[in-house]
Amino acid sequence: MALKNVQVLKGFRDYLPPEMMARQRMIEIITAVFRRFGFLPVDTPALEYAEILLGKYGADCEKLLYRFTDNGGRDVCLRYDLTAPLGRFMAEHRGLEKPFKRYQVAAVWRAEKPGRGRFREFFQCDVDIVGSSSPTADAECIALDNAVMTELGIERFLIRVNNRKILAGLARLAGVAQDREALFSRTLDKLESQGAETVRSLLQTEVGLEAEAIDRFLGALELKGSNEEILESLAERFQAVEVGRCGVEELKAVLGRAAAFGVPAGRVALDVSIARGLDYYTGTVFETSLLDLSGFGSVMSGGRYDELIGSFTGAPTPSVGISVGLDRLFAGLCELGLIRPGGAATKVYVAPFGTDTLEAAIGVACRLRSARISAEVSYEADQKLKKLFKTAESKGIPLICLMGSDEVAAGQVTLKRLADGRQMRVPLAELEGAVLELLEYPADKTAEGGS
Amino acid sequence: MALKNVQVLKGFRDYLPPEMMARQRMIEIITAVFRRFGFLPVDTPALEYAEILLGKYGADCEKLLYRFTDNGGRDVCLRYDLTAPLGRFMAEHRGLEKPFKRYQVAAVWRAEKPGRGRFREFFQCDVDIVGSSSPTADAECIALDNAVMTELGIERFLIRVNNRKILAGLARLAGVAQDREALFSRTLDKLESQGAETVRSLLQTEVGLEAEAIDRFLGALELKGSNEEILESLAERFQAVEVGRCGVEELKAVLGRAAAFGVPAGRVALDVSIARGLDYYTGTVFETSLLDLSGFGSVMSGGRYDELIGSFTGAPTPSVGISVGLDRLFAGLCELGLIRPGGAATKVYVAPFGTDTLEAAIGVACRLRSARISAEVSYEADQKLKKLFKTAESKGIPLICLMGSDEVAAGQVTLKRLADGRQMRVPLAELEGAVLELLEYPADKTAEGGS
Repeated sequence: MALKNVQVLKGFRDYLPPEMMARQRMIEIITAVFRRFGFLPVDTPALEYAEILLGKYGADCEKLLYRFTDNGGRDVCLRYDLTAPLGRFMAEHRGLEKPFKRYQVAAVWRAEKPGRGRFREFFQCDVDIVGSSSPTADAECIALDNAVMTELGIERFLIRVNNRKILAGLARLAGVAQDREALFSRTLDKLESQGAETVRSLLQTEVGLEAEAIDRFLGALELKGSNEEILESLAERFQAVEVGRCGVEELKAVLGRAAAFGVPAGRVALDVSIARGLDYYTGTVFETSLLDLSGFGSVMSGGRYDELIGSFTGAPTPSVGISVGLDRLFAGLCELGLIRPGGAATKVYVAPFGTDTLEAAIGVACRLRSARISAEVSYEADQKLKKLFKTAESKGIPLICLMGSDEVAAGQVTLKRLADGRQMRVPLAELEGAVLELLEYPADKTAEGGS
Repeated sequence: MALKNVQVLKGFRDYLPPEMMARQRMIEIITAVFRRFGFLPVDTPALEYAEILLGKYGADCEKLLYRFTDNGGRDVCLRYDLTAPLGRFMAEHRGLEKPFKRYQVAAVWRAEKPGRGRFREFFQCDVDIVGSSSPTADAECIALDNAVMTELGIERFLIRVNNRKILAGLARLAGVAQDREALFSRTLDKLESQGAETVRSLLQTEVGLEAEAIDRFLGALELKGSNEEILESLAERFQAVEVGRCGVEELKAVLGRAAAFGVPAGRVALDVSIARGLDYYTGTVFETSLLDLSGFGSVMSGGRYDELIGSFTGAPTPSVGISVGLDRLFAGLCELGLIRPGGAATKVYVAPFGTDTLEAAIGVACRLRSARISAEVSYEADQKLKKLFKTAESKGIPLICLMGSDEVAAGQVTLKRLADGRQMRVPLAELEGAVLELLEYPADKTAEGGS
């Protein structure tokens, strides 16, 4: 039977060992910061009742859901993000002490048009603080953002902050009908990706704004100055707009608390053009850009959603969270040279060479493994030397342990470091020590690489 | 809008922090063994073209696939295991040096009837050696099985081994038509779960065997004795059955090599009744049972599949692998008391208490986090003392750092260990040292628990 589609689905991808190992190092760094901030891990299923996810993200997003009828006739969806499922989770585990601080690292699925760095399956790394309306919670998300970026070795990044209530205030000033505010925010979110002209035309045709109101509104988005200056200027505009004033007050409190958390002032900028595309945000919203990669998009974003969890639990549950876009961040770290795919998990290639050498080689591999040194043993004792070296090299293994019939008879092994060809023959009794010594070659000069 | 189904799908489940943390520790132990054996991590998508998975597992399994048409009209399935997708993976990444040793930890989905410990979404942890027909590869899987169990602290377990060719030989002797051999193996796999009577009746009605042949065959399955004795007795029966002889020879070589890998003889038992339910196995098959939990089922199983990968790549690619059933193994470790859900990721609960104490508390949390001590800070400074203690306790945080207005004014903090009530008031300058000292309480006496 000839298979037609022996290929990965469009928009999906495999992860090979070098990338996988570097990604795992990155995830370990990120989740260590999460735990230090008091977040604990949870997991939820990939599939949920469609009803859990519908009506949460907005029409544009909802089109991207992987939705189908399961074998039992249930209307189900693959999860689109980790936030709506968290609402269902909180409704089922009501006894959890609040504020509940959890993190989750998991795949999500969106049937988007695939593009450079945009996949239909990708990994998110979310923290959420469920059940607190305190601005300290929003500020802690900013502090966490700052700590994650710093811990990953990124020096030049900017956390841009806004508040949905400020956008609502500006919308009100521009004459946007209240039932179009969500559409208005979603439209605004396209500013960076699709440009001012597209947004201007959408505001006219879809939101129904007059050209003059749009000008006034887009002008407000370009407010420049220090965070304090912008807040002051907004407060002035919002004298008669309560929702806007409320947004200004909230943002002021959040920025003050972020400073208490030690986030350097230059790292956090109030940017009135930040909207975020998801319908469920109600207050603070944040995005994080890498300053040395312009046009790269946000690598860590989130915001406050005071209504979403309550829509599941039936009780007011104000919440705030922030999410790392793992795949984009990984691409960014690679481009910045802060992480390199690779890093051989395996340290020694044990190569039997000649009749009756395989069992001895197996014994050596076992000894290395007992000493917590990773080792691969060749299963064939009849390969050519050249082939053995080629195999070790193509697997990125830095050290070869050669066991010819001579060595085995003499109770010895020959160790050879591939990076510089340094070679030594040692008695079996000195195996582990000699291996550790040879593995101590400066990391940046070995085949191992990686950071 | 009232939601009807605010619940997890039938057969699916959430993981809460205590279980999640213990599972993560277990996975770390397992994957560390994998890496030590020279396996490297990969990942593949949750979704594959249906064609990739169809015809690989057998009719009974195929019914359990989550299969649907995606938004682009593609016929797709959620992965049923990690092995068939590996075939697709190898076909797309042909340059990988063989034998290719990879591991993968990922969820799989099967629309099974949910039951005790049986879920529709569960996690597998697979190693595979792709591109080697050497019995050393099969033996290394057994050695890895032994190392994983040992590293997890399990002392009483048994790895039961068989070879599909031995079953084919017995089937031939019993008069099973060659085109029913797969059905025959699948039927046999039900022996442990559904009992001899069911299997006897299925062999009669579905495989078409005579009662007398079934008796003879089931008798052969009860062969007792040392591995060598059973092999000898089988060799005798198979004098005229080549496939059976071949199975005996293969198994003999695998068992010999397992001994070379240092696997204690008592840990590996030839058991002719082991079949494994999946169609793709062609040679060695293994299962692992926990001897102190009878009827618990296998926690680590696998086998050799010499045709599966080649059906994707078009080139002969003999392979062997073994898979940890993470959820079942975790349940087993809990029942055996070898792992306990829990283990507070968060060490200190920083509790402001009174006017103007919040900023100081935030500062203390920041200092602890900088010292890599995980800390949660209460967002509210106006809570009652009793509530603060209750919160820390219900979160399983062992140490509370109380910052009342007095302490803040004096530049001090009050530390209290919840397990024994030990309390000390220290100047801020001594914060980290005092916290570390109090955290050194014997682990099994703290609220932390865990192993």
